[in-house]
Amino acid sequence: MEFNLNSKELEKLLSKVIPAVPTRTPMAILENFLFEIEEGKLTVFSTDLEISLRSSMKINSEDKIKIVVPAHLLYDVVRALSDTQIKFETETNSKLKLTTDNGTYSLGFSSPEEFPSPPDVVAEDEINISGKELKKAIDLTSFAMSKEDMRPAMTGMLFEFTKEGVNFVSTDGHRLVRYTNKKIKNPREEQFIIPERAINVLSKLLTEKEIKATFSKTNVCFTIDDVVFVSRLIAEKYPAYNSVIPMENETELKINKNEILSTVKRMSLFSTTNTKQVKFSIKENSLIVAAEDIDSGSSAKEQVKCEYKGDQMDVGFNTAYVLDILSHINENEIVFKLHSPTKACIIEPTKQKEDEDLMLLLMPVRLNG
Amino acid sequence: MEFNLNSKELEKLLSKVIPAVPTRTPMAILENFLFEIEEGKLTVFSTDLEISLRSSMKINSEDKIKIVVPAHLLYDVVRALSDTQIKFETETNSKLKLTTDNGTYSLGFSSPEEFPSPPDVVAEDEINISGKELKKAIDLTSFAMSKEDMRPAMTGMLFEFTKEGVNFVSTDGHRLVRYTNKKIKNPREEQFIIPERAINVLSKLLTEKEIKATFSKTNVCFTIDDVVFVSRLIAEKYPAYNSVIPMENETELKINKNEILSTVKRMSLFSTTNTKQVKFSIKENSLIVAAEDIDSGSSAKEQVKCEYKGDQMDVGFNTAYVLDILSHINENEIVFKLHSPTKACIIEPTKQKEDEDLMLLLMPVRLNG
Repeated sequence: MEFNLNSKELEKLLSKVIPAVPTRTPMAILENFLFEIEEGKLTVFSTDLEISLRSSMKINSEDKIKIVVPAHLLYDVVRALSDTQIKFETETNSKLKLTTDNGTYSLGFSSPEEFPSPPDVVAEDEINISGKELKKAIDLTSFAMSKEDMRPAMTGMLFEFTKEGVNFVSTDGHRLVRYTNKKIKNPREEQFIIPERAINVLSKLLTEKEIKATFSKTNVCFTIDDVVFVSRLIAEKYPAYNSVIPMENETELKINKNEILSTVKRMSLFSTTNTKQVKFSIKENSLIVAAEDIDSGSSAKEQVKCEYKGDQMDVGFNTAYVLDILSHINENEIVFKLHSPTKACIIEPTKQKEDEDLMLLLMPVRLNG
Repeated sequence: MEFNLNSKELEKLLSKVIPAVPTRTPMAILENFLFEIEEGKLTVFSTDLEISLRSSMKINSEDKIKIVVPAHLLYDVVRALSDTQIKFETETNSKLKLTTDNGTYSLGFSSPEEFPSPPDVVAEDEINISGKELKKAIDLTSFAMSKEDMRPAMTGMLFEFTKEGVNFVSTDGHRLVRYTNKKIKNPREEQFIIPERAINVLSKLLTEKEIKATFSKTNVCFTIDDVVFVSRLIAEKYPAYNSVIPMENETELKINKNEILSTVKRMSLFSTTNTKQVKFSIKENSLIVAAEDIDSGSSAKEQVKCEYKGDQMDVGFNTAYVLDILSHINENEIVFKLHSPTKACIIEPTKQKEDEDLMLLLMPVRLNG
């Protein structure tokens, strides 16, 4: 085998495929790229068994060969080279030799038998999604995915296709985000749960351009430009999240997001480390936010401008969750929809964007004393 | 006690003093600032017993009081406030109360008895040093300080005042850097060793402006603008470093720094993880740099342009040390002065700057086989 490549073009190709290479794995073979040369095309494939990435480029070669090469070593060498031509050759002693004007680099390669095959995603129908809209959906909702393995469905992000559009949902039991985008159309009504690692990789691959998605029972395949990204789906039923969204929250607290965000940031300095509790004391057009750390004897309270008509109420929240939620809303005018100090609170932008709907739900905490 | 302060001005003051507050210490009192109010001046002091920082600002108050306040909590609150006026009051229950237009913040304070006193540095004579020159000296040499406690003197940086100027020296036994600056004048011949933590803090405090330094037997005091920075000195004798600098290294290898730096970076990908060894094979006007990883069976070699007249020689180095040294030389034309494969190698810029001299020494490693 012998072919020539430009270092910067190869770097670009490898940079797209490297994210699926696991850094720590008991299966050492997965730390490699599968290089496949056929019909004048080099295809590079990587997988950690949960996700896989594949991309190709044209090369001037009539060989037909499959080899397995150390992924990080090859990627690091190619990145460390200046813009130069590289000659690739396989030698009889299972060495892949790279030659440039000034240097030669020799890497052991192995045969592809043990390398897992690229999965087949049986295409029922293909959905076109704007990369920009999908990225927005991930940015708005992915933060609330659960980090705990107890309920596997909640460690992923729900893609719920309905007649009206797509609901993107994440929850960890303490908070829930549902972002609805009515611009993405799909003929069928279906639910898929995509694992966290796949969501993170997908988010980095997405650009403004349109992508294609194909869902099978067990896998999802995204085609993003010249990259094919496949992830297994979480084969669980997603919790019936609609049943926890309260309908009777009619008391509204309207507030400026940046003001309440910076107030809660200051309160988080004073709230006791293990409870992280902050108290919202609400009465007509008045909000007092307070926190105290019993251990160190420090405390703080602030008055925040708001619009509120309703009964006087004291509600407790976890500062970390409030900060997380508020920092994932882009609009500055928001509303807290409340019912009582023990019932879930809904947080929304006052004005929803056209064809979109963002709803964040936060469970209150029981106040001390 | 009662006084008013602008939040941004206080933030600026505290940011200068916070670096000496230890993050982990068995002496909890050191996690505080000492606040001293006297004659219309607020002085803030912090120390970790090795280094201390002090700075002051004028305030409108006739009180005379000393209190100890939680450093990180106060600094974090002040930083998290927008530009606003803060009223400070002490309350009878040992609370320091901060009031702004929208909020009140209460922090426990304690009495100053147990807080260590600021050290007295007996001023023999004061040296004026350009902040810019001192920062350059630290940037060029501090990286080579030893991280191991075995020989305490080598964990600090040597300031050696001579009639001709100042030598700044660091070494960890594998490499040594000596930077001489003849522009800094001092009447006496003396040696001081400043600990690593002090060097790091000093480096961040320095600006282009002139500073004052006062050395006593046990401490050094730097006055940088309105900040007084005191550090203990390492009370050890610095190794007689001059005796390890070879005089007979007359064989010169002239080379472009960026080229050899990027070559060694690529070699570091191939060198065996535990030895990190790279081989320089030198003969007339020819340098071949090579590395191999016996475990993975990968290897690399590159030809690098150079000027060399002398015997053929193979020298081994540790890639990490070569990279460290090369990335701390600012000039691009450098020379390796060699004697034999087992003797220390000197690396210098081909052309020294006026009134300056930079010398880096690197011990070779024994080549395999």
